Amino acid sequence: MPAPLSLRLFIEQYASLPEEDWKKIALLFHPRTVQAGQLLLAEGQICRHLYFLESGLLRYFILKDGSEITKFFTDAPYVFTSQVSFTTQAPAKESIEALEDGTLWEISLADANALLAHASWSTFVRKLIQEVQKYTEEILTELQTTTAEDRYKKMLSSQPQLLNRIPLKHVASYFGIAPQSLSRIRKNMLASRS
Amino acid sequence: MPAPLSLRLFIEQYASLPEEDWKKIALLFHPRTVQAGQLLLAEGQICRHLYFLESGLLRYFILKDGSEITKFFTDAPYVFTSQVSFTTQAPAKESIEALEDGTLWEISLADANALLAHASWSTFVRKLIQEVQKYTEEILTELQTTTAEDRYKKMLSSQPQLLNRIPLKHVASYFGIAPQSLSRIRKNMLASRS
Repeated sequence: MPAPLSLRLFIEQYASLPEEDWKKIALLFHPRTVQAGQLLLAEGQICRHLYFLESGLLRYFILKDGSEITKFFTDAPYVFTSQVSFTTQAPAKESIEALEDGTLWEISLADANALLAHASWSTFVRKLIQEVQKYTEEILTELQTTTAEDRYKKMLSSQPQLLNRIPLKHVASYFGIAPQSLSRIRKNMLASRS
Repeated sequence: MPAPLSLRLFIEQYASLPEEDWKKIALLFHPRTVQAGQLLLAEGQICRHLYFLESGLLRYFILKDGSEITKFFTDAPYVFTSQVSFTTQAPAKESIEALEDGTLWEISLADANALLAHASWSTFVRKLIQEVQKYTEEILTELQTTTAEDRYKKMLSSQPQLLNRIPLKHVASYFGIAPQSLSRIRKNMLASRS
């Protein structure tokens, strides 16, 4: 089964994609399904694939003193991996969990590297990493400059539907606060509206 | 004046560099000196160049309610820019200040893009962005999981010489604490050692 049209459209957002390049790319991605709660990658494992998330929602997290701290969320459609582990084939310092049932398409490191000979794929990969770098820097800047409450309010106004799909405890750990504190913030917001 | 050997050695850490590619690259970088305290880029300006920092030390910062918040430091030798502003030619959301006198080499966006036709430069750029993404994620993870005091102690043991070159107020704003709090942490550390 070749990779879906949604992957082609995703790549074309970043780079122009000749028909012959797409045909090669489509054959190197292989389908896989995940279920809500399933770990795609556990800290310490080596990440062997780059993935296209066709549907579903992911959470990246790390363990710190026995607690899970959420780094960020990845919503479909998007291309993802555990970048350092994938590119160096070293054990991952993070885990990736599916928060919803989903479909993804995986490509091996060798196949992804072979595709770099094509300008379309090479441009796509470069621009995608630039975008991921931009998102990571935005999260970092917000963490350095904004309170958890203000970050929560911003996400509530900019991504309300995404927020609805994520269990409260993970939202709280993403904002670096206790679930009780997040409940208090939400109660205060409701009270000030009524 | 063509770009220095140190740039060639820097690129070769990431990609193999044929002699003819290096000759082209070397001619497209132009020298510039900066003085300690000089702003290389002010928030709101468009970043027109990618730079190789041959010598010196930089600080990236943003303004928040009139205060400067330090995002990170860049030590020579390294290649840097204000990535989003440079690649999209939109006003920068950050400022870049030289903390020391230094020498840098600049290349325009058009010239940097033209070089992407060479596999050596294209590989170099991709791997460099991957590395910057890795560093940014590390800072983010530390901020999400570690106290300012522990982050300061870690930097003190891993990069003591770098720390010595940065004014205390910027170290404090990087760790998200008041200069007085950082002084207290330092005093406590000295007291516990004696």
